[in-house]
Amino acid sequence: MNWQTQQTMINSEPHLKDVQNQEDTRDIDIQKVGINNLDVPIRIQRKNKTNQTVAAKVRMSVSLPRKYKGTHMSRFVEVLNLYRMKDFSSEDIQCLVSDIKKVLKAESANVKFSFQYFVEKKSPITKLSFPLAYDCSFEGDLNGEKYRFVLGVKVPIATLCPCSKEIAEFSAHNQRASVKLKVSFNQEKDKIWPEDLIEMIENCASVSLYAILKRSDEKYVTETAYNNPKFVEDILRDLVIKLRQDKRIESFETEIEAFESIHNHNAWAYQAEGI
Amino acid sequence: MNWQTQQTMINSEPHLKDVQNQEDTRDIDIQKVGINNLDVPIRIQRKNKTNQTVAAKVRMSVSLPRKYKGTHMSRFVEVLNLYRMKDFSSEDIQCLVSDIKKVLKAESANVKFSFQYFVEKKSPITKLSFPLAYDCSFEGDLNGEKYRFVLGVKVPIATLCPCSKEIAEFSAHNQRASVKLKVSFNQEKDKIWPEDLIEMIENCASVSLYAILKRSDEKYVTETAYNNPKFVEDILRDLVIKLRQDKRIESFETEIEAFESIHNHNAWAYQAEGI
Amino acid sequence: MNWQTQQTMINSEPHLKDVQNQEDTRDIDIQKVGINNLDVPIRIQRKNKTNQTVAAKVRMSVSLPRKYKGTHMSRFVEVLNLYRMKDFSSEDIQCLVSDIKKVLKAESANVKFSFQYFVEKKSPITKLSFPLAYDCSFEGDLNGEKYRFVLGVKVPIATLCPCSKEIAEFSAHNQRASVKLKVSFNQEKDKIWPEDLIEMIENCASVSLYAILKRSDEKYVTETAYNNPKFVEDILRDLVIKLRQDKRIESFETEIEAFESIHNHNAWAYQAEGI
Amino acid sequence: MNWQTQQTMINSEPHLKDVQNQEDTRDIDIQKVGINNLDVPIRIQRKNKTNQTVAAKVRMSVSLPRKYKGTHMSRFVEVLNLYRMKDFSSEDIQCLVSDIKKVLKAESANVKFSFQYFVEKKSPITKLSFPLAYDCSFEGDLNGEKYRFVLGVKVPIATLCPCSKEIAEFSAHNQRASVKLKVSFNQEKDKIWPEDLIEMIENCASVSLYAILKRSDEKYVTETAYNNPKFVEDILRDLVIKLRQDKRIESFETEIEAFESIHNHNAWAYQAEGI
Repeated sequence: MNWQTQQTMINSEPHLKDVQNQEDTRDIDIQKVGINNLDVPIRIQRKNKTNQTVAAKVRMSVSLPRKYKGTHMSRFVEVLNLYRMKDFSSEDIQCLVSDIKKVLKAESANVKFSFQYFVEKKSPITKLSFPLAYDCSFEGDLNGEKYRFVLGVKVPIATLCPCSKEIAEFSAHNQRASVKLKVSFNQEKDKIWPEDLIEMIENCASVSLYAILKRSDEKYVTETAYNNPKFVEDILRDLVIKLRQDKRIESFETEIEAFESIHNHNAWAYQAEGI
Repeated sequence: MNWQTQQTMINSEPHLKDVQNQEDTRDIDIQKVGINNLDVPIRIQRKNKTNQTVAAKVRMSVSLPRKYKGTHMSRFVEVLNLYRMKDFSSEDIQCLVSDIKKVLKAESANVKFSFQYFVEKKSPITKLSFPLAYDCSFEGDLNGEKYRFVLGVKVPIATLCPCSKEIAEFSAHNQRASVKLKVSFNQEKDKIWPEDLIEMIENCASVSLYAILKRSDEKYVTETAYNNPKFVEDILRDLVIKLRQDKRIESFETEIEAFESIHNHNAWAYQAEGI
Repeated sequence: MNWQTQQTMINSEPHLKDVQNQEDTRDIDIQKVGINNLDVPIRIQRKNKTNQTVAAKVRMSVSLPRKYKGTHMSRFVEVLNLYRMKDFSSEDIQCLVSDIKKVLKAESANVKFSFQYFVEKKSPITKLSFPLAYDCSFEGDLNGEKYRFVLGVKVPIATLCPCSKEIAEFSAHNQRASVKLKVSFNQEKDKIWPEDLIEMIENCASVSLYAILKRSDEKYVTETAYNNPKFVEDILRDLVIKLRQDKRIESFETEIEAFESIHNHNAWAYQAEGI
Repeated sequence: MNWQTQQTMINSEPHLKDVQNQEDTRDIDIQKVGINNLDVPIRIQRKNKTNQTVAAKVRMSVSLPRKYKGTHMSRFVEVLNLYRMKDFSSEDIQCLVSDIKKVLKAESANVKFSFQYFVEKKSPITKLSFPLAYDCSFEGDLNGEKYRFVLGVKVPIATLCPCSKEIAEFSAHNQRASVKLKVSFNQEKDKIWPEDLIEMIENCASVSLYAILKRSDEKYVTETAYNNPKFVEDILRDLVIKLRQDKRIESFETEIEAFESIHNHNAWAYQAEGI
């Protein structure tokens, strides 16, 4: 952002009193203040070189020094407005968070985009293609000069219970489950796409999910899950192995929740490393 | 409600202008106006003669004749306040809705309570008991002198897919599902408890759900579901048969949604009769 | 859809038993059965001749005659798949629902798309533009040859309380509110865009909402709301007048909910006509 | 819990293979595994010496050493079952988490109860009483011998914008807001009730919320908010001052979100200290 654009945002309305700019005497530095739940459509780059328009929910915040009464909420939206029209990739979060820090004259700034992201997926036997939706998030945090990026995905999968398979004479209870994963990595030297994390997680499932399944696919999916029984503990461990092996990943946090078909409550497992 | 209580609510603050009572000239009768999403704890009677305190979300409304600008929102809460302390049963909805109609001087009134209701349930083999939570609703509608009561329940169950069982060499996909049911009946001559509808629905499932299952229970539940495969269509039809046979039920509306373990979308079926 | 495409969907896997096609003896016609909560990205046409990619949640269902055990869930997704790549407008819902009825060999079919839709909106004084998101829905119902289309929008607005303004020495409580509106009209002779309904509703508010407001805008919005106090009853009546006057609209259903800043519950009003 | 009760839970079904107890070779200690979203009614003690039945959502987990394949999910519910019938206070969380750690033979255990809690509240002028609902949580964490308790509340309040008041000729935008607060303290020497945190937060608002307000109350509430304008920053700072002054509180995390009546997004502020 050039200097002139910045000035326009900051000094625009001298005739109206700037209450936010008044002095505050309570002597309290605020860690994060800003806006939450702002809807914005953005066009983001995909691993396959195409792009996709998504509807993001955005949270943007800055630190606020003790001497100021308030931050300037409208400037967050004005800065974001400059980013709406371009192809957006997770790297642009760093520029955005840096612009916000500058325009709001803050020590630190944080931006989080959450959106539904579609990836085409072929059914296992008939190879019919239809997109599956995954919740994704990009979070950038700039504290002084220190930048940290966190990529998040939520992936629906199926789990089949090893205990139920063992003790029942036939069949086993199985269910839809959800895996949340957040990873941080150094964007200056590495690149990780949402597609990479989705694939990593789907490979840990009893079987993964599809939008279209013809009967031969359904047969395959049913039998695959039965041949691949997994507790939430198994999925967690298989995923942790992959995450530890991936040298790009500096830290991760993951959570598996299985919507047990035999209970109205869920099986749940959690692991965070490097945070 | 006695006459004096009513007057207290209605004429309480003569020194402040009653804007709601002003004349409106747009010539439009409003069908329903009131309050929504009010939280209130109520103690309700149970089928087993005990009672249970639940946290209800309440919607209360009246019709508003064309000549008045607005209804008096605070009076709904004042009337409800008189019902908080007593043991409440679905029959009390009729008195409440009648009091609201009177105090608000309306042609018609409608009240809906939605709450989570617990019923003790024993695991099938080890007989360990733990409550299961069901969403319930009581809705009363008084139009002139005509009263209609609707009882609603939402019951979590399991379904096991007959197609998957047939085509796979072993096992079958199964999942948690949810059945919503609303029935209307004549409260002056009949009584239907939430417990009755819950039992009716659970008897239509591949197998019902439990909070505690030891291994022998889990074996039973897994095998029972496999021996009892059902599409959402099957559950709907089995339920419709029971609903048509029950002479107390004047009308019903039901909806089954199965959270398919092979998809990220749901199988769904719907039927309404007598409405 | 051509005859060959249809046949491919229907007869594709003769070697695997078609359980759904088996005879059912319970003698119950099912009103609606299908899939719910399927995510799909679609590119829809806008009033300003551009288009917009949205992430829709889709429900699709058909009636099922008493003689069949089940419907074929995968065919819904296969039919929808043919519509994904084209520019989609609300008129295409009629073709889609007609194709579904044909492929599923049903008497009636119903399709509902729900999605977040963005419309650019300029702040009232500084004229800064940023999109605002509105929940929209397209619902098509084909019963035999009779087709009915319903367009839905949900619009966030502000309301300022006339009673509070009257009785307080200064100021008045105001709050965010939400207006839901569904209208049906004859698509063969008339066209109504989501943009039309949004504008109609925003014109009934105390003041409408914006994503960016600089101080001069905020001054305008604050004062406009105070000069334009409205109960939910007022918003409902002003909207009903517009809806009755619009000759294209055959029926409507509307609901206003104001998230009162003085309560933790909401003021609520409802009207349905012509349904 | 006595030794015999424990043994019953652990050794109950020798004839069925204990898959969870099998050896795991992946060499990964799991941090947390258990159940989530279990519904249970509990009767909890209140500050005013009465008690209240609430419907809690419960998450319970333990650590799992690398050598075991899985934890025993049913035992969590069995242990909880022993606590259902008694008057429950936040101190009982420590016994519960300790029993869970013992029965599951774990290094660490964690329990979280989330529930809606009602507190009677009198309108400011007419003194009409009606309960207001607050989301509360009790979380206990036992790591080896180290115990930590976290009390959480979510309190709805009203905020009135100081900037809008300053720049508008009359009135100011105001709205419902929500304050989340979690505090940890040493339960062996101190006691903090949900009521204490609720009062602390309501005292920081522009004005607090009520279920019943007659016109004289509404006048008071409207004028009080206008005389007490506050940004989310102001509420955060006023609350942080109180939290720092309270010597019982070892750490806190708080978040204010105001549902701006002029935007469809929210103003947001966050602070965590001592964590």
